[in-house]
Amino acid sequence: MLSEFDLIARYFTRPPRRKDVAAGIGDDCALLVPESGSELAISSDMLVEGRHFFPDADPYALGHKCLAVNLSDLAAMGAEPVAFTLALALPEVNPEWLAPFSGGLLELADRHGCELIGGDTTKGPRNICITIFGKVPSGRALRRNAARVGDDIWVSGTLGDARLALAGYRGELPLDEQALATAAERMHRPTPRVALGIALRGIAHAAIDISDGLAGDIAHILKQSGVGACLQVDALPAGPMLAMQDQPTRRHFMLAGGDDYELCFTAPAPMRDAVLQAGAASGTTVTRVGRIEAAPGLRVVDPDGTVLDLKTASFDHFTSP
Amino acid sequence: MLSEFDLIARYFTRPPRRKDVAAGIGDDCALLVPESGSELAISSDMLVEGRHFFPDADPYALGHKCLAVNLSDLAAMGAEPVAFTLALALPEVNPEWLAPFSGGLLELADRHGCELIGGDTTKGPRNICITIFGKVPSGRALRRNAARVGDDIWVSGTLGDARLALAGYRGELPLDEQALATAAERMHRPTPRVALGIALRGIAHAAIDISDGLAGDIAHILKQSGVGACLQVDALPAGPMLAMQDQPTRRHFMLAGGDDYELCFTAPAPMRDAVLQAGAASGTTVTRVGRIEAAPGLRVVDPDGTVLDLKTASFDHFTSP
Repeated sequence: MLSEFDLIARYFTRPPRRKDVAAGIGDDCALLVPESGSELAISSDMLVEGRHFFPDADPYALGHKCLAVNLSDLAAMGAEPVAFTLALALPEVNPEWLAPFSGGLLELADRHGCELIGGDTTKGPRNICITIFGKVPSGRALRRNAARVGDDIWVSGTLGDARLALAGYRGELPLDEQALATAAERMHRPTPRVALGIALRGIAHAAIDISDGLAGDIAHILKQSGVGACLQVDALPAGPMLAMQDQPTRRHFMLAGGDDYELCFTAPAPMRDAVLQAGAASGTTVTRVGRIEAAPGLRVVDPDGTVLDLKTASFDHFTSP
Repeated sequence: MLSEFDLIARYFTRPPRRKDVAAGIGDDCALLVPESGSELAISSDMLVEGRHFFPDADPYALGHKCLAVNLSDLAAMGAEPVAFTLALALPEVNPEWLAPFSGGLLELADRHGCELIGGDTTKGPRNICITIFGKVPSGRALRRNAARVGDDIWVSGTLGDARLALAGYRGELPLDEQALATAAERMHRPTPRVALGIALRGIAHAAIDISDGLAGDIAHILKQSGVGACLQVDALPAGPMLAMQDQPTRRHFMLAGGDDYELCFTAPAPMRDAVLQAGAASGTTVTRVGRIEAAPGLRVVDPDGTVLDLKTASFDHFTSP
């Protein structure tokens, strides 16, 4: 006899579509058939109600976002999405939540040909844990430790609108309804840069996705690559809503705001045209924002060459996101 | 700057040991190098405090159990453990909990050569989600849909002591302290039958691990294989503590008690010696307990051939586990 929590699996069970999924939902394990000459990229993210999303979050957008943040990890490795598992704790079985949640999740999954192959459902405080699988030709993944001195630093898309939306919700900044709604789209429905990540194979050196804020995330690349960096603060591409804010807010939210899920990557200077072509081919704007240097640490400079103090100056009137 | 929750990752981060792990913890994704000619078996389980374990559960045993239930899923497919991810929500960063939890987890992982390659940590109600990866030669996984009419039905080890411990904790049965402690070992520190599962490749047809109770779990094999089954109730191997209980309790807990994490599998009758050899080679007792039949449904018979009514008779004085 099926329990309520077995029943909810029905919202997520569909016939397998991919040939490299030998077994999907319904056995003790799913079975993936790896592609010869490829490596499997794996990432896991856990989203908790009250911490990563509001209790009244729109379930369709939440379904999208849960998978998007995992797809973004694949993008940062240059990996092509294959499949994912979903483990879900829910306080109750509520079709009015489950139907749109699975709708948002599977719509994004279908767009990336990424198949739901298994998981778990249980009663408990709402918690969504997705583990995602992608493939990348052996040795060609974009790694955090691959930045080289002299590389250009690039970011995709625009930065800071997700953080601006958070400021709007928190009342840190006055935002009109339309601006908040537009910025909030970036927060609730991020676009994982999967096509760009794949297009950057063989072109970019290091890459990471920007989930915690550019300054913090690029620090992982610098540390793992044993290098430093200089960012041109005015080269950073502000989100369209953030662009209308004052300079301190723009700079702070672009450098320290999380949740944009853009890519930050490095590439040798002779690859500039190739990077621009990869951006064009994947329909993603790419902006050159700095350079990898030998001296350790991150320096952010304004157009005069003055190094900004990331800890004080314009940044101290906002709490960290 | 590392947050508290970045710091806890240190309890779980060790240098990679396996050659087929091209990247472990520390990048956007882990990278696995699949073995040529093999399929990747994947399973995900989410354990929630208050539902799957008590808030005061011994963290060392809990670390063991979280991985054991996932290893058991690999065992049921005949897959060899390779790696796993751990996503962890915790209400607080408490080294007195984290150190023994990671100790129990990694001790079992090391015993199976199964490497922790990534995951996530966050603040939230305690929730442990492990996704595990194993490898199995292509087409040789033990599937739930592979039982054939005439197959023998076997179970590994013994059944019911985990359920007996639950009855002791709940006060459903009077159990002396020693009996409870012994039975509770089966509940808190199940032994995944990984070596047996691997040894049964090419010998067994269908397999499943017994997490919810034999009667319920074998029903998955019957349904997916389009067959029925007859179990000899007195052939079922009772756990040593359960063996001292009365007949109705023995029967009920062996058929309906969960959490033993033994394997139930089917194999053609000419394979009886091979099954016994696989058991001996893996140090696991195996017991023949019934037969797959064409008539749909599960029949449980006593030595007189009388079919037991699973819904009433001896079963109605216990609530379902």
